[in-house]
Formats: sequence, structure tokens, C-alpha cells
Amino acid sequence: MKGSSYEIRVTYQETDMMGVVYYGNYLRWFEIGRTEYLREKGMSYKEFEDRGILLPVLESHCNYHSPARYDDLVTIKTKISKLKRTKIEFDYEIIRSEDGELIAIGSTVHPFVGSDFKPISLKKKDKEIWNLIEQELVKSN
Amino acid sequence: MKGSSYEIRVTYQETDMMGVVYYGNYLRWFEIGRTEYLREKGMSYKEFEDRGILLPVLESHCNYHSPARYDDLVTIKTKISKLKRTKIEFDYEIIRSEDGELIAIGSTVHPFVGSDFKPISLKKKDKEIWNLIEQELVKSN
Amino acid sequence: MKGSSYEIRVTYQETDMMGVVYYGNYLRWFEIGRTEYLREKGMSYKEFEDRGILLPVLESHCNYHSPARYDDLVTIKTKISKLKRTKIEFDYEIIRSEDGELIAIGSTVHPFVGSDFKPISLKKKDKEIWNLIEQELVKSN
Amino acid sequence: MKGSSYEIRVTYQETDMMGVVYYGNYLRWFEIGRTEYLREKGMSYKEFEDRGILLPVLESHCNYHSPARYDDLVTIKTKISKLKRTKIEFDYEIIRSEDGELIAIGSTVHPFVGSDFKPISLKKKDKEIWNLIEQELVKSN
Repeated sequence: MKGSSYEIRVTYQETDMMGVVYYGNYLRWFEIGRTEYLREKGMSYKEFEDRGILLPVLESHCNYHSPARYDDLVTIKTKISKLKRTKIEFDYEIIRSEDGELIAIGSTVHPFVGSDFKPISLKKKDKEIWNLIEQELVKSN
Repeated sequence: MKGSSYEIRVTYQETDMMGVVYYGNYLRWFEIGRTEYLREKGMSYKEFEDRGILLPVLESHCNYHSPARYDDLVTIKTKISKLKRTKIEFDYEIIRSEDGELIAIGSTVHPFVGSDFKPISLKKKDKEIWNLIEQELVKSN
Repeated sequence: MKGSSYEIRVTYQETDMMGVVYYGNYLRWFEIGRTEYLREKGMSYKEFEDRGILLPVLESHCNYHSPARYDDLVTIKTKISKLKRTKIEFDYEIIRSEDGELIAIGSTVHPFVGSDFKPISLKKKDKEIWNLIEQELVKSN
Repeated sequence: MKGSSYEIRVTYQETDMMGVVYYGNYLRWFEIGRTEYLREKGMSYKEFEDRGILLPVLESHCNYHSPARYDDLVTIKTKISKLKRTKIEFDYEIIRSEDGELIAIGSTVHPFVGSDFKPISLKKKDKEIWNLIEQELVKSN
């Protein structure tokens, strides 16, 4: 998968009594993935919000392939898979860094909304950010 | 939706700086939903594990319709939507108790595995639990 | 300990690979304890915030006596231990409901601040809430 | 403060509706602090557990000085403050990396226990680890 890569270390807090990472925590990893993806492309999510563009979550999906365990280094791979004027979709892969094993695959869909949580067209609202994202979409697919 | 209902109160910890419940927390609510569903049907998940049957998560999905907010009472509705010898699927609806507004819809898929995490056929491994679940499947659909 | 009692069920998410509840989760239970304490006394924390009074946390402390485990019912006991014009302190006890075993003891200190996060004197800002809390302090000690 | 430093980035998930990091999350940061401290000194906590030495938490304490916010880079400073045959204490400072502002100060106390959760004397159980830690205690105070 093209896109960006970001590595994190699994903490004790993220494990559960099965000895593996609790399934809900992957959604936090996806958040880290898309945040660092955007930062790498020169437009941090914080800057999005400062410019009045919020990306709440409309949909999330995750397929768990192999458990991540305590102290594992895992790589979060992120790319933009779809872009419309009103929403964006990110794809993720979680890989165990040590041996390249696939841990999980997922995706999230986000509408573009303003500070008042009302839907906006990103293309109209902020042409600069729109252009940046559109370029990345082309590059990463 | 048929199935069981369980009510929880949204805590401060579950909110994020958007003022709404963080999207990853819904997966914890789904866990509560299926746990209380099983308990209500007379077979707590803890008992499953004590009998050597574990239900890790293979897949999760969530559609976020309307934000849940701090101190909201929300109802988690849960039912079994699919049952095979080797896996089970739960469906969930999150409803704001006060006004019945739909907050989220989701599902999770779980393989049946033994204490060694190897796949098992529930029907072969534990006929009693299999029969209980099969009955519920019929009733709730 | 006098004060109020509130019962919760330990979820899988709260456990870690040691098979017990992760130590950081007790601070969430303390939040639930003080929220339900205030609600029981007729002044929900949400109402505090609606009236422009916030209670961020200045200090937290917890002594872990015995581990809480998955699916345990635990009782959170809460009382106000100190009250000054500018801050309030809550004490907590976590008890396993089934056998009364002491799980943890803790406390949190909260300054009274306004919506702008600046310190306020609760006695000056809202005499009604002040009187309610003062009464509870007397009763619970 | 001497000891080791480890930097993390604040995620959206860690914030609450006050717009700041939820107070319970600092205990996770302390976990990261002591884990990375131990790793830096050549004895990862995972290795401790593999050698039959567990460090559950007996006590935690945190003073919150200034709020950490979304996307802040924060530095977790960690050192060993006390060492006895049966327990160890870590001190932590959380600093905003950008301006050096003090966010929080805390400490945790951990008994040494074996895989059966029974108290052990670290000095007797594992002289090598004992010596390593004792050296660090001297260096960091």
C-alpha cells in the first residue's frame, strides 16, 4: 500500500485479558494514521480545524487478521482512497514492524463539516486544502 | 429491532474536544451490548470463557448517525444476526433514550476459538451453548 | 464510608494482559462516582457546567488494594471530604459488590473555575449550589 | 529532573469536551514513561515479565498544573525515586515540549511480584536486574 507510514509501540493499557490489543483501540490507531498522514502532506488536522473544517466520522470498518501484542512495534499505513466534495475516505493497514505480518485492515469515512457541524463542500470552502488532498489522492492510488 | 436492550450513561471520559463521544468508544458499547445480551439469555460471556470458548473479534463496522453527548442516557440494542458453526455475528443499534434518536448502527463478527486460540466448531465443542444461541437467533429475527 | 454508592460492571475493555483492571481506569470510575453522587444530591455535574461552573482536576490519588477483574460488579462509594470557597475534594472507595472486598481507595481535588477556566469562589458565584454542597459535607462526615 | 525523556503527541481520543486531555490519561503516559525508561536502561518491562517479575501498581498520584491540548508534543520525564527489596517508586514530569511548560507531576509505586502475584524480594529473585536498577537510582538522584 502506498501512502504514509507511522510507527507506534503497543502499551500495556491497550491490551486486554486475552493478552492482545483490545479491538476498539485500532480506531485510535486509525486516528493517529490519518493525523500523521495529513501532517506529512503539510496540512495538519489541527490546521483543518483552525480553518473551520472538521472531519467527524461517518463510518468505520476494521478487519482483524492477527493480534497485536504488548510492546510490539506496529506500523500504521494510511492513504486516501476516495474524495468527494462533501466527504473523504481513508484506508489503513496495521503491520507488525518486526516481521511485516498483517495485523488489521480498516477504513473510515468523514464528511466535511463547518464549525457549526453543517455539511460543506470542501472544494468551495477551501480551495487550497482541496487541491492538496486531490493531489495526494492521485499520487497514492 | 428485537433482541435485548441495555442502558448506559455517557461519561466525560468518553467525550472528545468536539464535544461528542469519540468514535472508537462505540466499540466498547458494542462489547457491553453483546455481554449483557448473552447474560440476559442465561449464558454470560465469562461462562463461555470458563468453558473454553473465546470470541475474539474478526470484523467490526459502525455507522455514526447522530452524536451522543455527555450525560446522555443511551440504549444499546443487540441481537444475533448470523450464526455458523465457526462464527457468530451481532448487530447493534445505539439509541438516545430520551427521544429515541438513532445514534449509531453497527455489527461485529466473532470466530469461535478455544483457549489455544485455534478455531473450533461451537456445535461440536459445546452443544448446550450452541442450542441456546440457535434458539435466540430464531427468536430475534 | 457514608456518601453515595453506585454500581458498575467491569468490561473486557478495562482489563489488561495481567487479567485485571488497568490502573488508569480507576480514575474514570472516580469520575462516575462523583457524577452520580452529585446527581443523587440533586445537582448534576452537567447542571454545574450549564451554570458556568467547571470542576477540572487539580490532583488525583489512588491506592490499589486488590485487583478488580472482568465481569465483577463493583460499587463506587463517594463522599465530599473537604470544601473551600475555591476547591472541593472527593474521597472514593471501590468495593467488590459480591464479597465486600476493598479494591481501591482514592481522592480527587477540583478547583472551581468559570467557563473561561479562571478560578472562582463558589460561595460568591452560586450561593444555591454552595449551600447544597455544604449541607452534604456536613451530612457525610 | 534527571532520568529519561520520551516524547509523545496528544491524540484527539485523549481529549475531552473541556478541550483538554482527560485526567485519567496521564496514568497511561506514566506507563509509557517508565516502560521507555526501563528500555533505555537496557531492561525492557517485557523482559521483566519474561523473567517472572511483574510490577503491578500499588499507588498512583498526579498533580495537574496546566492542561495538555490536542496535537501538543509532550515530554514524559521519568526517574526512579525509591527502591526497596520489595517495591519501587517512579517519579514523572510531563512537560509541553514547545515551551517547556510544566503540565503535570506524578508518581507510582509498584511491588515486585512473581507470576503468581505473590510478593518477592527483587534482590533475591534476580540479582542482575536488581543491580541495574540500583545503579540507575544512584545516577538519577
